[in-house]
Amino acid sequence: MSGIIAAAAAIAAFIVTVIAGKWAIPFLHKLKYGQTILDIGPSWHKKKQGTPTMGGIMFIIGIVGAILIAVPVYYTLTSANSGIWGENLLQKVRLFGGLIMALCFGAIGFWDDYIKVVKKRNLGLTAKQKMGLMLLVSCLYLASLYLAGERGTTQIPFIGTVNLGFGYWLIALFVILGTVNSVNLTDGIDGLAGSVTMLASMFFMLIATLLHFYGFSIFAAAVAGGCAGFLVYNFHPARVFMGDTGSLFLGGMVVAMGFGLGYPILILPIGFIYFMEAMSDIIQIGYFKLTRRLTGEGKRVFKMAPIHHHFEMCGWNEVKVVIVFSLITIIGGSIAVLSVLLG
Amino acid sequence: MSGIIAAAAAIAAFIVTVIAGKWAIPFLHKLKYGQTILDIGPSWHKKKQGTPTMGGIMFIIGIVGAILIAVPVYYTLTSANSGIWGENLLQKVRLFGGLIMALCFGAIGFWDDYIKVVKKRNLGLTAKQKMGLMLLVSCLYLASLYLAGERGTTQIPFIGTVNLGFGYWLIALFVILGTVNSVNLTDGIDGLAGSVTMLASMFFMLIATLLHFYGFSIFAAAVAGGCAGFLVYNFHPARVFMGDTGSLFLGGMVVAMGFGLGYPILILPIGFIYFMEAMSDIIQIGYFKLTRRLTGEGKRVFKMAPIHHHFEMCGWNEVKVVIVFSLITIIGGSIAVLSVLLG
Repeated sequence: MSGIIAAAAAIAAFIVTVIAGKWAIPFLHKLKYGQTILDIGPSWHKKKQGTPTMGGIMFIIGIVGAILIAVPVYYTLTSANSGIWGENLLQKVRLFGGLIMALCFGAIGFWDDYIKVVKKRNLGLTAKQKMGLMLLVSCLYLASLYLAGERGTTQIPFIGTVNLGFGYWLIALFVILGTVNSVNLTDGIDGLAGSVTMLASMFFMLIATLLHFYGFSIFAAAVAGGCAGFLVYNFHPARVFMGDTGSLFLGGMVVAMGFGLGYPILILPIGFIYFMEAMSDIIQIGYFKLTRRLTGEGKRVFKMAPIHHHFEMCGWNEVKVVIVFSLITIIGGSIAVLSVLLG
Repeated sequence: MSGIIAAAAAIAAFIVTVIAGKWAIPFLHKLKYGQTILDIGPSWHKKKQGTPTMGGIMFIIGIVGAILIAVPVYYTLTSANSGIWGENLLQKVRLFGGLIMALCFGAIGFWDDYIKVVKKRNLGLTAKQKMGLMLLVSCLYLASLYLAGERGTTQIPFIGTVNLGFGYWLIALFVILGTVNSVNLTDGIDGLAGSVTMLASMFFMLIATLLHFYGFSIFAAAVAGGCAGFLVYNFHPARVFMGDTGSLFLGGMVVAMGFGLGYPILILPIGFIYFMEAMSDIIQIGYFKLTRRLTGEGKRVFKMAPIHHHFEMCGWNEVKVVIVFSLITIIGGSIAVLSVLLG
């Protein structure tokens, strides 16, 4: 039953995203919502100038639409006459609260993209403004979980249920902001963030099913379907970019799945690519600053950060980066599923 | 183009196998081709007595049929007027020679199954007879490769092309016999050999495509499709077993893909489960004999070998074993693809 609804949600999200693209891409083109490519980025990305951005709205429509229909249908069919909010309030707040949180991140990204495009300022919102808004969204999300009954316990494979008390909320805040920003960083090559997040969602779907949390199986299936639909246009050579609109939304969805399943630690193996992207940036900047202070001249660890640009400078084409990073996601996701099964 | 033909071959192999099952399972039932379950196997497998075996013929029909139509169609369409044997003789001998070799292994398995079923002897052919026949088939396969121009060079990731000279043929013989027997050992739990081989074939398909050896993409797609079709009936609780007919054929197909792509070493990561199954058996028997000689009493490393029975005795159900072994195959397969891409 839940399997059929999940499959339907994935297919619906895919189709709606593809159809939305037919309409959105020419529209974004007309509005000149093309991304101003960073001057500090790789020079060969200059040719991407003019490709419309903010394409994330395509899969946001597809994914949110599919979830808002499929998940209530599932709960209505399975919880008999108790209605969709009848039982297990926490589960439903995790689901719909997570969705709202991701939408808020998407809205921040949209605002940022909009400023970039209209004012032709490459960097949109100031970093402080953006971080403040993201912090606010994260706190509201965690507050809703607290009000619904979440009390700082989390699952850790091979260890079991751990209660971290107040520390949980601080760590959670760090994990949420870190994950969302890492997904944002991953979106720097045609098809990369979409492919990695599609695969990550498929593994979350598998884990949700193993944990009998079928609401999230449907949720994750919709994310995977929406990403697949977006890849139709975003795979190299990309005809549209997701923009921060898309990458911050997807980051929020990854957070929603990790926390929603009570296994936020699984974001690490499943989203290993996100982590690697963020770490490469941190290491690059940290090492540069350190060596500049010590020797007067800043040195680099990678040819360019985040790490996907490093591999591009090593001569890989964009498709190769996407394939390799996807395979790493498959390995990490499989390890995550194994750790849930065996832990 | 090759992608569409490969997809068509996979779907055709799937459908033919499923349809063959509709006819074959009642037929095998009527002929009382039920497997006599080994007395030395786990006691809880006794209930499997009466489930028909030799179901491998179902996917042999599907896979061989799909390959014999799709591969010549592909070569005819792409090699213009040179005909299917026109160019690249070695490639085609690797393909069709590999298919014939796998069919011969299937025939040995069929003969063995048939003796078991009709004479109700559990062990069919004597081990020596079986091994002799398998050795003969392997030698003929290697001879055909030699005649077609294979000269002992092989690809090793991160090292490159290595020429092993005469040693190549000895190692190849060992690898072929080891692989085929290991796949045979893996077939001891509902859906296990089928799932693992389906996934393994999907990774070989990916690698064949990366190497632009599209004939084998189609070949591997057909194997994956046939395995998927068989799983419809063989997944727990199994309505039919593949028997040695099926497992020796699939072992031959794995060999054909590994050697055909010029990368036999990839059988190790992709078929890591086969290797693990065989090693567990070897370790179990070796340790038992060693301890019996040293202390007078034989000791065991595993609760039961091959290793899938060990996990069953640890309390895993058959589905869990299949999921875990499949995930390990996905990890191994991803590592294999990565090593081809990066090596």
